[in-house]
Amino acid sequence: MGDAQLDGLIRQVSNWGRWGSEDERGTVNLITPERRRAAASLVRQGAIFSLAIPFNLEGVPQLPVTRRINPHHWMLQTGTDLCAGVQAGAVGGWGYADEVVAMATHAATHWDGLAHSFYEYKMYNDRDCALVSAAGAAQNDIVPISSQLVARGVLLDFPRMLGTESLALDHRISISEIETAFEREGVESLPGDVLLMRTGNMGRATHRGGWEDYAGTDEPGFGIEVLPWLQEHDVAAVAMDNWGFEALPSGNPTIWLPVHAVAIVHMGLLLGENFMLDALAEDCALDGVYEFLFTGLPLPLSGAVAGPVHPAAVK
Amino acid sequence: MGDAQLDGLIRQVSNWGRWGSEDERGTVNLITPERRRAAASLVRQGAIFSLAIPFNLEGVPQLPVTRRINPHHWMLQTGTDLCAGVQAGAVGGWGYADEVVAMATHAATHWDGLAHSFYEYKMYNDRDCALVSAAGAAQNDIVPISSQLVARGVLLDFPRMLGTESLALDHRISISEIETAFEREGVESLPGDVLLMRTGNMGRATHRGGWEDYAGTDEPGFGIEVLPWLQEHDVAAVAMDNWGFEALPSGNPTIWLPVHAVAIVHMGLLLGENFMLDALAEDCALDGVYEFLFTGLPLPLSGAVAGPVHPAAVK
Amino acid sequence: MGDAQLDGLIRQVSNWGRWGSEDERGTVNLITPERRRAAASLVRQGAIFSLAIPFNLEGVPQLPVTRRINPHHWMLQTGTDLCAGVQAGAVGGWGYADEVVAMATHAATHWDGLAHSFYEYKMYNDRDCALVSAAGAAQNDIVPISSQLVARGVLLDFPRMLGTESLALDHRISISEIETAFEREGVESLPGDVLLMRTGNMGRATHRGGWEDYAGTDEPGFGIEVLPWLQEHDVAAVAMDNWGFEALPSGNPTIWLPVHAVAIVHMGLLLGENFMLDALAEDCALDGVYEFLFTGLPLPLSGAVAGPVHPAAVK
Amino acid sequence: MGDAQLDGLIRQVSNWGRWGSEDERGTVNLITPERRRAAASLVRQGAIFSLAIPFNLEGVPQLPVTRRINPHHWMLQTGTDLCAGVQAGAVGGWGYADEVVAMATHAATHWDGLAHSFYEYKMYNDRDCALVSAAGAAQNDIVPISSQLVARGVLLDFPRMLGTESLALDHRISISEIETAFEREGVESLPGDVLLMRTGNMGRATHRGGWEDYAGTDEPGFGIEVLPWLQEHDVAAVAMDNWGFEALPSGNPTIWLPVHAVAIVHMGLLLGENFMLDALAEDCALDGVYEFLFTGLPLPLSGAVAGPVHPAAVK
Repeated sequence: MGDAQLDGLIRQVSNWGRWGSEDERGTVNLITPERRRAAASLVRQGAIFSLAIPFNLEGVPQLPVTRRINPHHWMLQTGTDLCAGVQAGAVGGWGYADEVVAMATHAATHWDGLAHSFYEYKMYNDRDCALVSAAGAAQNDIVPISSQLVARGVLLDFPRMLGTESLALDHRISISEIETAFEREGVESLPGDVLLMRTGNMGRATHRGGWEDYAGTDEPGFGIEVLPWLQEHDVAAVAMDNWGFEALPSGNPTIWLPVHAVAIVHMGLLLGENFMLDALAEDCALDGVYEFLFTGLPLPLSGAVAGPVHPAAVK
Repeated sequence: MGDAQLDGLIRQVSNWGRWGSEDERGTVNLITPERRRAAASLVRQGAIFSLAIPFNLEGVPQLPVTRRINPHHWMLQTGTDLCAGVQAGAVGGWGYADEVVAMATHAATHWDGLAHSFYEYKMYNDRDCALVSAAGAAQNDIVPISSQLVARGVLLDFPRMLGTESLALDHRISISEIETAFEREGVESLPGDVLLMRTGNMGRATHRGGWEDYAGTDEPGFGIEVLPWLQEHDVAAVAMDNWGFEALPSGNPTIWLPVHAVAIVHMGLLLGENFMLDALAEDCALDGVYEFLFTGLPLPLSGAVAGPVHPAAVK
Repeated sequence: MGDAQLDGLIRQVSNWGRWGSEDERGTVNLITPERRRAAASLVRQGAIFSLAIPFNLEGVPQLPVTRRINPHHWMLQTGTDLCAGVQAGAVGGWGYADEVVAMATHAATHWDGLAHSFYEYKMYNDRDCALVSAAGAAQNDIVPISSQLVARGVLLDFPRMLGTESLALDHRISISEIETAFEREGVESLPGDVLLMRTGNMGRATHRGGWEDYAGTDEPGFGIEVLPWLQEHDVAAVAMDNWGFEALPSGNPTIWLPVHAVAIVHMGLLLGENFMLDALAEDCALDGVYEFLFTGLPLPLSGAVAGPVHPAAVK
Repeated sequence: MGDAQLDGLIRQVSNWGRWGSEDERGTVNLITPERRRAAASLVRQGAIFSLAIPFNLEGVPQLPVTRRINPHHWMLQTGTDLCAGVQAGAVGGWGYADEVVAMATHAATHWDGLAHSFYEYKMYNDRDCALVSAAGAAQNDIVPISSQLVARGVLLDFPRMLGTESLALDHRISISEIETAFEREGVESLPGDVLLMRTGNMGRATHRGGWEDYAGTDEPGFGIEVLPWLQEHDVAAVAMDNWGFEALPSGNPTIWLPVHAVAIVHMGLLLGENFMLDALAEDCALDGVYEFLFTGLPLPLSGAVAGPVHPAAVK
């Protein structure tokens, strides 16, 4: 697709103004109390499935040579200091441990916020990209979204449907495949859903023992042609088990990440990256239940363009 | 109480070995699937209440002169760079924003992990405090706990019960007050509960426009005499709207934070600090419903002794 | 002065193009090998005087609530870990300590680089301020300057000359006072000099036990009317024992730091801040020798707009 | 050598107590004012040679996957923010840039301090290694040393002497080679010297375009058998153009870095790593002058076990 097609698509799917000119939540508005209540009623057994990867220096997929630093963990107080009798404030064997963490918000499991992407110098809801300065995002930061994310979740397990461990790196998920997945799993798409679309790409990488060929390279996902379907179905958020969310290379001749440009900037759609979906998928395959209560409130980091999160599914 | 009393109490409430010698979850084990399922059934309206404060440099209560740094937010890519035409990789008006955060895990709303406190050179489940080194917590880090925290929540609103905006700084919550609160609110304590005990102390501080007299000073809370009650009732976690969790000064002649010593080290009880409970309390007072679905999964930071979290109540 | 006066002054003192359109060193070009050789010949006794303050969290003057973080020091490996037998790679009592530091480049003793200040959207040598993005300074960073700073140093001790411990906060050093100081001290100004102008303002603050009223407030120094004198005398760099270099408030009706605007942007003059001059001044008063070998090479931080430095005088 | 040999060597070269039981400077004490004065007299032309590498994320040799983070540079204020009209405090085109840096002290050019290495649980001058805790080095930090480092420097250019671009990775510099180098260069060793021993190993790595095979691997240098020579000649400091200072593998059957153990812990000898000596060596080869004024004061980081530095030679 070229930019003319992108602009046509944008006119089709834009949510600018849909929830008012002041809105900073985008599609998360679709998670209504009623939908959240219905989501809670999906809990049958009370089993919980973590969808995060461990946050640590070597356990996360960002390339450490980039400026997106992986989580660093620095201790301010340690038990060894206590043992050695040098911890300030300790009395005998009574003391404590304390620490600092530093990381890129995109380093591990996270939501992209509505100030993360720009198109034609704009971000969501017709706001100027210059509102995102060295002081952070003056609007569209992760905070307004962060408190809403308990909703119905639906896992779409494409690799299982297609009889493979993981989608090929050049696999591009189609609308037809999405609809087939819903049908095969016996669930229907409902407004305000959080869709967890499994590609198997994180499992593929970790089974090989590392993330070397994972971040920054080709990946399976979907392209901009799927966005109208998400818009028609009032999807609140989509999370993937890949690093860059969308199918890469995208096929767009001009820009690198066209799904980001249209979905984040114009739809205000919340995108989740590096969600680990394999354990949940295993359970869904066993009991045949692909809908559940989803919880995934990111840290409310003021001014931030993304939000680290520990999401989970409760079945 | 003196240390002899502390040691007697420890024998009374210890959970060492209760869930096996390998256990690193402590009381969070009490959140069974069955209890989690029952918790989900409490959702009536689908309303959600955030229990976090915004994470930013001046919005969190730690004293900035301490080594517990408040959240710092540093941009790697900005919209202003895009506007100026200097963002690497940008094409025309297409570009992005990116960032790094650094903070003390205890800076804002967080759970204290089971490696945070030591007593007699031990941490939870008879482990040596030397397992917590400059490399982090080799055992008892926040990760095993982090994936479990969807449970029944109960708010105990002590200030409202006592007809005040916030508890006096020297107020020490008693077992009798806890039982009265349950009774007044028409709920009973159940195994695996997450108790949210409101003191009003965060509201007190923020209504005055800042955190100046909040962290590190006297605060309302409860003392070690309450711990047997929590143990008998199989409470899974307790969170407070204060900075140091327990009533301070504690009255203990030797150590500063005796509740930490007994609850974290010997009970393996999860303690939450800086949980903002005022909005939830307002709603509970309106509808008279004090039990709800609680979600509060901290970031799974490997080796960490605490976990930043965005907790919420769903009613 | 108003902006018309500022613009007139700029025409008078501008060094744009003086050392070619590619130049990124500004007045540091004036430190010729010949001048450096002569500076070395000033060493009579070999005594060395440190001009830095200790770099640590509480020992530096920045207000900790600002985003200019004071030096944080986080250990990666400790001796207590070795004692406890938990240091990876250690053998018996053989091991090591390791660490990370994080700080604002302006936090302690530093040189302001030529990309630190902008006037009319320009920085030194007619360069666009947009060259300083979230990726750092693409031009005029501290690196080209950093390797040159061994030169003749001259201390101008204004408080001693004026019979006071420290200049009054509203004292504005005049050209006449500068010339009187040279005369009184028996030295003359030479091209390529590094002038250390003592106000006593750091000593004033530290003698009171802290930096509370130091950074961000009024301070003694000089105003823009002194810049032509510095230009005529081909001064290579000026360092002060104050936080913001110039006399504050400046008297300019529009901009906060007019000396920065003219000196850094148009003269390409290197300005040093938080240089501790008291011990050196004491010695100069004793032996009457106010010229010396100065060394002060900042860390060559690529892209940086300032350079932390440990400067010294050798007499 | 085995540990018995190490212990014998230690008795031979130990400086514990030599400058008093309170001493924290070690061999840097040997840089007397008289020696510093003589060093200044070596300046003939005033030419200056930087011995640092640029400090930046990819320009320094530490492996980015280790916890020794390479320099990160984060902007607090940018020129692009000014252009976009969103910089707080800016007036028209007047504004500024500001920043934070974070790095391992060992990441780039640095001195190892006397608290960096431990042997038999001790550090320099019979101090307990437990003095180095998560709070930093309570004794033997870099500060007392940092203010002394202007001295005579001598370059020993081993690759040129041996007719090669760089020493083979398994080359072990002998006392005989050191003495031959002095003789060939027409200089003699004097007390208080800073010896710059060139291996060519940094040039070898950078000429290949990166640091991939540099840090953490085999390297040319000298072994513990050279230490008595350094002790007899009262050398104040030695810096190398390699990452780990000593010949590696060391040949010691037990510990990884025996030169560190003996030189830092028992001699209190200052060791410099990642000093880039090639440009200086080129000049020395041209004019045949291998002695000069050396300046290399590291940042006075309180509690630090190493000091980043921008060293230089002035000829």
